[in-house]
Amino acid sequence: MLLRSLCALNEGARNSLEDISGLIERRSRETAVDVKTVPFSRLDNWVVDDKGGLKHSSGKFFSVEGVEAETGYGSFRRWTQPLINQPEIGYLGLLAKEFNGVLHFLMQMKIEPGNINHVQVSPTLQATRSNFRREHHGRKPFYLDRFEDAAPRDILVDQLQSEHGSRFLRKRNRNIVVMLDGDIELYQDFCWMTAGQIKALTLLDNKVNMSARSVFSLLNPGRFARPFDDTRALSAFGKALLLSAGTDHSVHSTDTLLSWLTGLKADCKLVVRPCPVNKMPEWRVSEDEIARRDGKYFKILGINVSIAGREVTSWCQPVIKAAQNYLCAFIVKEFHGVPHFLVQAKLECGNYDVIELAPTVQCFTDGGDDGGGENESGDPVPFFDYVRVTPPERILYDTLQSEEGGRFYHDQNRYMLVMAGGDLPEEIPEEFAWMSLKQVYTFLRFNNFVNVQARSLIAALPYV
Amino acid sequence: MLLRSLCALNEGARNSLEDISGLIERRSRETAVDVKTVPFSRLDNWVVDDKGGLKHSSGKFFSVEGVEAETGYGSFRRWTQPLINQPEIGYLGLLAKEFNGVLHFLMQMKIEPGNINHVQVSPTLQATRSNFRREHHGRKPFYLDRFEDAAPRDILVDQLQSEHGSRFLRKRNRNIVVMLDGDIELYQDFCWMTAGQIKALTLLDNKVNMSARSVFSLLNPGRFARPFDDTRALSAFGKALLLSAGTDHSVHSTDTLLSWLTGLKADCKLVVRPCPVNKMPEWRVSEDEIARRDGKYFKILGINVSIAGREVTSWCQPVIKAAQNYLCAFIVKEFHGVPHFLVQAKLECGNYDVIELAPTVQCFTDGGDDGGGENESGDPVPFFDYVRVTPPERILYDTLQSEEGGRFYHDQNRYMLVMAGGDLPEEIPEEFAWMSLKQVYTFLRFNNFVNVQARSLIAALPYV
Repeated sequence: MLLRSLCALNEGARNSLEDISGLIERRSRETAVDVKTVPFSRLDNWVVDDKGGLKHSSGKFFSVEGVEAETGYGSFRRWTQPLINQPEIGYLGLLAKEFNGVLHFLMQMKIEPGNINHVQVSPTLQATRSNFRREHHGRKPFYLDRFEDAAPRDILVDQLQSEHGSRFLRKRNRNIVVMLDGDIELYQDFCWMTAGQIKALTLLDNKVNMSARSVFSLLNPGRFARPFDDTRALSAFGKALLLSAGTDHSVHSTDTLLSWLTGLKADCKLVVRPCPVNKMPEWRVSEDEIARRDGKYFKILGINVSIAGREVTSWCQPVIKAAQNYLCAFIVKEFHGVPHFLVQAKLECGNYDVIELAPTVQCFTDGGDDGGGENESGDPVPFFDYVRVTPPERILYDTLQSEEGGRFYHDQNRYMLVMAGGDLPEEIPEEFAWMSLKQVYTFLRFNNFVNVQARSLIAALPYV
Repeated sequence: MLLRSLCALNEGARNSLEDISGLIERRSRETAVDVKTVPFSRLDNWVVDDKGGLKHSSGKFFSVEGVEAETGYGSFRRWTQPLINQPEIGYLGLLAKEFNGVLHFLMQMKIEPGNINHVQVSPTLQATRSNFRREHHGRKPFYLDRFEDAAPRDILVDQLQSEHGSRFLRKRNRNIVVMLDGDIELYQDFCWMTAGQIKALTLLDNKVNMSARSVFSLLNPGRFARPFDDTRALSAFGKALLLSAGTDHSVHSTDTLLSWLTGLKADCKLVVRPCPVNKMPEWRVSEDEIARRDGKYFKILGINVSIAGREVTSWCQPVIKAAQNYLCAFIVKEFHGVPHFLVQAKLECGNYDVIELAPTVQCFTDGGDDGGGENESGDPVPFFDYVRVTPPERILYDTLQSEEGGRFYHDQNRYMLVMAGGDLPEEIPEEFAWMSLKQVYTFLRFNNFVNVQARSLIAALPYV
């Protein structure tokens, strides 16, 4: 389906960006979120199993399990860690509709317990299978029928996409965008926004949640007849990006990129075996947390959540709390006028297919702004220093974005897009490759190629 | 890379088809293959573990393990079965070279212990990782360097492709085609053939082995400047197929097909857990075999192989012996002049990604020609009877082809391509979809979408 226009900022928009920001503010003010850490023994409906893992007493939702990973990628490595196992495939769904020739998306102002600021802009539907099968006896999620009953011709995008491979075991969600034809009831906390408005919100810290960024990354402007009404809002680089979505010019052919990825996957053996949480040598299990002995990376906590707004709800669940923030950055560079992204082939033990395409830099910092930049073996992370000392005029994008607020606690990370300078070495390590935006969209179209951090950065394009 | 010509039959070929057939015959005659069934206790270098599974004493090669599978696809099902676990990614490699403007492939006349006729035409390189890392202290496989050191610009195809999901646990091989520039030594049992000659051999029973068919299926004629010198050899349907590889006309858009597959993968939960072989209720473990109590599907045997030709080699290994043959058939139909394949979304418990695209019919027959056509739940298999009673004038292809001769014993199955008649119902079940050849090639390009049985049928195109 060719739509007339993808991105409008305010022209023809049902709500102005100011009104939308006001709505988010108001909803946050109206809501009190109280999160208390509790020992695992006091997590209602959750049990610690004999291996030290955590599971819901219904057997549904998700569990915390230990794994031992072994890989020959890079320097040979073997390690243990807990992962969240959530085998169900949930919906991250967007309803879209044209008003006066301008495409709008129905967004939800959603509170999630882990959000640093309570309310963020979320997709129309964000539901696990247990959710929409109503396994916790709640109400049916709003607008679920619109996705379950969508006619094939109304489906713009429908893909299984991964989430954090360092924390989830092979997790995927169904990222889907459905066009609406007729009228629809507008429930409280839902609001129509243009793609331009949502992308503009991703230029700010922590306004658009991870699920929304994930779905938005899949909307290839090359598929739209007149993707942008309002190119005035775009930088010169943004305009070049937009043009590049339609060109086949690239440094490497897509076949060469596929071959590069095939070679890496074939060479790096990844074996992931179950390992009892209480037998993991690098980790310590106490009554309150599952944490690394050296305090690195993340820990698992139990929380009691109480949300008081128009109604009060409370529940218990385990969450992941990061010990360190990370930096996710793409280095971009124009080759013969076509912007390219320096993509990293990254192995994480929870990946569905061994390696996913990640930002150029995706690594822990040491909490503050000055440390970090070493990988798990203590080696320097390629391009970390390059990104960190980028002069301001080459920084295209630099924001803090939140990760999954339903599983991660107060987790915000720095996301950057930086332009390469003349000082970038021509020789790059073998696990990196230059890709045009059109090639990134080619890989995005098939499952499990582009990781969620890379998608978060793509979501803001070309509004950088 | 655009090559001038893909398929020549004999014109400009280094060897005639008659000479090649003669070579295969001669090599088979010269070789004595002796295969004896032995109890598991007498399988040298193999051990039965405490779960009743089999593994090599080195921990390498492959093992036989039990799994319990649970899925909600179709009627809810739960079953146990043994699978071959071969986590290494091996090479299925083809060297290609132009002689007088005609593309040739370096094929090996290869003996495999399970082959019903000893020698079949195989890729240049067919080696597991243990093979090419020389873990059994043998010689280095011929031509390995040409693949390991190939320059990206010389690589035509390089993909991870799956094998039998009902027998292997998430097995994949690296299917790769490399163009040669300079001269190369021709070792004994290797022979240059044109794609046309290899495809012509797939029209005969058991001449081209599964690995060769797998790699050949990936050579999309649409990528070649002048794919066929010799279209005289093609039927009208073959010519239509060839044209269709370059057209975007199709019944469904590729996005709709991706959405169809995403929906099926999201709905059918597949959980595969380890289950001790000696605890599988449907299976019986004896000293000589691991077999279903009802005798269905397949059994695991131990064999002692001795091959006497120019030199004598012998070894022991477990193999799978089919209890029933199967029928693999695509129904094809032209829509507005563009041939389409009726593709089945098939769940098998060893699949890497839950569901793969399979032929319209892929099911067991009851040994003879008349039985079968029921699935594991006893329900009739869609289109089985339709294919079985196809009148001869609508049969495009009907051969017996061998499966993996290194793991399966005397396993040959019936492969068919049949043209739909006016009697084919317009309504098809939801796990089926019509795909153009170009769309099949689109899915083939990415990993783990098209299963090995479907690839076997694609390999013979457009010479049907």
